[in-house]
Amino acid sequence: MEDTDPVDTRTYPAEHLRDFTRRVFEHFQLSEEDASLAAGVLSRSDLRGIDSHGVARLITYYDMLAAGRINPRPKIRTLRESASTATLDGDNGLGLVVGPRANQTAIHKANFAGTGWVSVCNTNHYGIAGYYVLEALKQDIIGWSMTNTTSLVAPLWGAERMLGTNPLAIGFPGNEEPDIVIDMATCAAAYGKIEIATRLGEAIPKGWAIDAEGRETDDAGAMIEGGALLPLGSRREQGGHKGYCLAVMVDVLSGVLSGANWGPFAPPFALQQKIPERSVGKGIGHFFGAMKIDSFVDPDEFKSRIDEYVRTLRGTKPAPGTDGPLVPGDPERAAETARAAQGVPLVMPVVEDLRTISRATGIALD
Amino acid sequence: MEDTDPVDTRTYPAEHLRDFTRRVFEHFQLSEEDASLAAGVLSRSDLRGIDSHGVARLITYYDMLAAGRINPRPKIRTLRESASTATLDGDNGLGLVVGPRANQTAIHKANFAGTGWVSVCNTNHYGIAGYYVLEALKQDIIGWSMTNTTSLVAPLWGAERMLGTNPLAIGFPGNEEPDIVIDMATCAAAYGKIEIATRLGEAIPKGWAIDAEGRETDDAGAMIEGGALLPLGSRREQGGHKGYCLAVMVDVLSGVLSGANWGPFAPPFALQQKIPERSVGKGIGHFFGAMKIDSFVDPDEFKSRIDEYVRTLRGTKPAPGTDGPLVPGDPERAAETARAAQGVPLVMPVVEDLRTISRATGIALD
Repeated sequence: MEDTDPVDTRTYPAEHLRDFTRRVFEHFQLSEEDASLAAGVLSRSDLRGIDSHGVARLITYYDMLAAGRINPRPKIRTLRESASTATLDGDNGLGLVVGPRANQTAIHKANFAGTGWVSVCNTNHYGIAGYYVLEALKQDIIGWSMTNTTSLVAPLWGAERMLGTNPLAIGFPGNEEPDIVIDMATCAAAYGKIEIATRLGEAIPKGWAIDAEGRETDDAGAMIEGGALLPLGSRREQGGHKGYCLAVMVDVLSGVLSGANWGPFAPPFALQQKIPERSVGKGIGHFFGAMKIDSFVDPDEFKSRIDEYVRTLRGTKPAPGTDGPLVPGDPERAAETARAAQGVPLVMPVVEDLRTISRATGIALD
Repeated sequence: MEDTDPVDTRTYPAEHLRDFTRRVFEHFQLSEEDASLAAGVLSRSDLRGIDSHGVARLITYYDMLAAGRINPRPKIRTLRESASTATLDGDNGLGLVVGPRANQTAIHKANFAGTGWVSVCNTNHYGIAGYYVLEALKQDIIGWSMTNTTSLVAPLWGAERMLGTNPLAIGFPGNEEPDIVIDMATCAAAYGKIEIATRLGEAIPKGWAIDAEGRETDDAGAMIEGGALLPLGSRREQGGHKGYCLAVMVDVLSGVLSGANWGPFAPPFALQQKIPERSVGKGIGHFFGAMKIDSFVDPDEFKSRIDEYVRTLRGTKPAPGTDGPLVPGDPERAAETARAAQGVPLVMPVVEDLRTISRATGIALD
């Protein structure tokens, strides 16, 4: 939301885009239920203001489905399980389908064993990490969600892309106050910000990226042409090793544990991206956790404590020039309220992509 | 290890310090078993080169025990449990005793339910987060460890101390290659580094701390006198909201979930520190996780994958002026090898503290 450049947009009701998306997925023979699930994930992203992960990506899913690179009718298999765990094979389905189903397995396990933990291989890009946490919160469950992604990030002291932006999400329910919803990539800045800087011809802040030689750069183009993003913390002195560690953690739980590809071998998200020369597993991987609050403490008691926690954070003395700390999830919540009422503004290149899909499939957009 | 200033040290064999520590704890009527457990935690920290968390802190534990602020004979109670979870009350015991026991509960649960997750209230400082993960690794278990701590860190856009340095640790076993052991605080730089800068009269890098007005500062003294540390990422532009989110995550899982104090209400570690005016729970809190690898995948297969993962990271093209990325845990492993052979060097102020304890208790040091 913060990096809007001054461009034309066209606004659609969220339900309208969701319906269009569902029909596009059905066009590729996804079951009605799966198409609806997948459209729901993208729609939630649009509503929450995470424009990069909503219908803006439909053209990519479309291309991958049209090219037969993603299985529209996956049969998800359980490779191993215990009372509180499962390892699943997503049968190369859409991450937007495999993710919600694996998350549901984690929640199901939590309802019996107190917690549920699911590592999934052979899957694809699953949308926003936060979606899965929001689903868990509906059931008084602390949800965890992680995924590995195509490599874009250098390890601290590395000069090449070895890790994905590997996001991590977790949520805690409030009662009178809003839920705390954490959803963050483990790199310093999102790739989308680099793309925007390139489009505007602006320099990027130091600490975001390195060039192809491994030197810190303020040139967005140098990152795109063979450079890499830096992990959260950016430099050793500022804790860049910690962001690197977090990226490894997400990669191992999602990719290594499940039997997916990991690190530099994670397959690309989009059709035009280069496929790594080596494969060390199946597809990419996700990791979901579900902790039933009732297994630890009375849920109402917990929510009251979260209310108090949120009020305490909001009472923090503000730093100069700010309105004080936000509560994790505030910006997305504000976007959701606004967009549910006023619709989702799409930039014209995204509208053009949707029109392309509309023409090719015969599914009406406008 | 990296911030050594040129000071006199005296070197002791690790077993010698461990034995001294155990006898000091026994002096306060800890059971032989508990004293041994607690001494083992501190010793592991000294061996791994994390000097701030080893016998350097014995004087603080000593003071707290002597003042009756910590219960030497805690009866740990289970407040609630399920197949894979437990909430424990540490009965105000030493964190060095409550922590290992709670971690053992998590491991025990994992052996039956696949995973075990334990949130603990009414406990005290538990040493290095990594200790617990290393214990889990001995049993082919992926261990998680977190704790909240006395507030020192400002939330992003806040101008005061509201959160602890709240560390997070996790470990993954290798076979031929070493284990991956992640152990990191969620702030940009350790408080110990601020103290060293003050002693040396040196400026600190921007991004580490703010002064009492909430302005970024390079003056270590300004942080100490009413300022605060900054979260990992330091600034909004560099992802400071992410470090803040991580600190909240650790605080909620350790403190809020268990019924401990949290945020600015976490009680102080040392006797001379101010006790917060308000209490919102009991003591501080820890959170432990244990994931039995066998519940997800064959452990040998997993370790082979970790070997390959480690070799891949080590093969990364190095950034200019570096030898390339480390594998998480490398520095601590190197220290452990060196110190197991050559002993643990203690700076003279720490030696003096130990001598003070020796005189007061009659337990021989040298």
